[in-house]
Amino acid sequence: MLGSLPSFDRLVAELSKLPGVGTKTAARLAFHLLRTPEQDVQALAEALLEMKRKVRFCQRCFHVAEDDTCSICRNPARETQRLCVVQEPQDLLAIERSHAFRGLYHVLHGALSPLDGIGPEELKIPSLLNRVETEQIEEVLLATNFSVEGEATALYLARLFKEKGVRVTRLAHGIPMGSDLEYIDSGTVQQAVDSRREL
Amino acid sequence: MLGSLPSFDRLVAELSKLPGVGTKTAARLAFHLLRTPEQDVQALAEALLEMKRKVRFCQRCFHVAEDDTCSICRNPARETQRLCVVQEPQDLLAIERSHAFRGLYHVLHGALSPLDGIGPEELKIPSLLNRVETEQIEEVLLATNFSVEGEATALYLARLFKEKGVRVTRLAHGIPMGSDLEYIDSGTVQQAVDSRREL
Repeated sequence: MLGSLPSFDRLVAELSKLPGVGTKTAARLAFHLLRTPEQDVQALAEALLEMKRKVRFCQRCFHVAEDDTCSICRNPARETQRLCVVQEPQDLLAIERSHAFRGLYHVLHGALSPLDGIGPEELKIPSLLNRVETEQIEEVLLATNFSVEGEATALYLARLFKEKGVRVTRLAHGIPMGSDLEYIDSGTVQQAVDSRREL
Repeated sequence: MLGSLPSFDRLVAELSKLPGVGTKTAARLAFHLLRTPEQDVQALAEALLEMKRKVRFCQRCFHVAEDDTCSICRNPARETQRLCVVQEPQDLLAIERSHAFRGLYHVLHGALSPLDGIGPEELKIPSLLNRVETEQIEEVLLATNFSVEGEATALYLARLFKEKGVRVTRLAHGIPMGSDLEYIDSGTVQQAVDSRREL
């Protein structure tokens, strides 16, 4: 970009490795950082290194944690007989924000995708099976995404756990809150009619 | 965001200070960095600090530089009697990419904006006047943006330099290359007609 400024070009190259950041955005960020006070840039660099040093994955549920186990696994108020299975830590956070689930979690870190070579062993599925066997789990709530891979993963896990006699549930399909029926795809409307409930 | 992960939250807070990065994007970047190999995150942190340590502004034209003067000011092949005035280093780069100007530059680092308290003293205008007086400048090409502030800055500088008998030019208005007349605003078309040239 600026042939004569190797340190600037190097920063642009590093920034453009971030997801959704192309060379132009990276240059804009680098010019912004050029005008930022030195201690603020230092704070950003330190935050990067500190996060990398401190954050790891919970040994039990594989959510992000700064200790061996995460704050949810350590919380004695959670219902330990219920387990919610999600693909990523971000999905776990979305469910936590809903305040609708008081049990524990298990983060798979992906979904089954045979074409990409991702089978059960590449995900946290062996440890999930182990937990369901050893932790007296009564219900497994499958909250993988509603994509092809997420649905396949949910089906695969449902079959496994039903064989073991564990109750398996899945997030409901239906009309999102506050939406106009007119704009909802017919597949979703069909699911909402099929799953209609008594009032 | 994640009450139990201060180091993660701190990184999200630092990232969301970047322009165009909100909390959601910052969280997405932080989750990406969480999965990035440690040495790559270290490379980003080091690139940040190195850029901040090495890059400064050219003492003569205030473009970015890693030495006291920038590579353009040091280049003996440039036409030293022509000076192109731009608002930001990014604008200078745009003109360099066009390969249409072989003179030197002066970066104002902003445009006049009395409402925001930005007068000539807040910009690199005193040093520009000094250069025009001491460097035998024959032509000043005003390449500030075509915004209200950029135009006001160009007018202000044009008046100053004309009094001193220096030739003052401004980037031409006209139809951008490859565009359909149908979609160009009428102000631009008017300027293009007024500035029509012989073939």
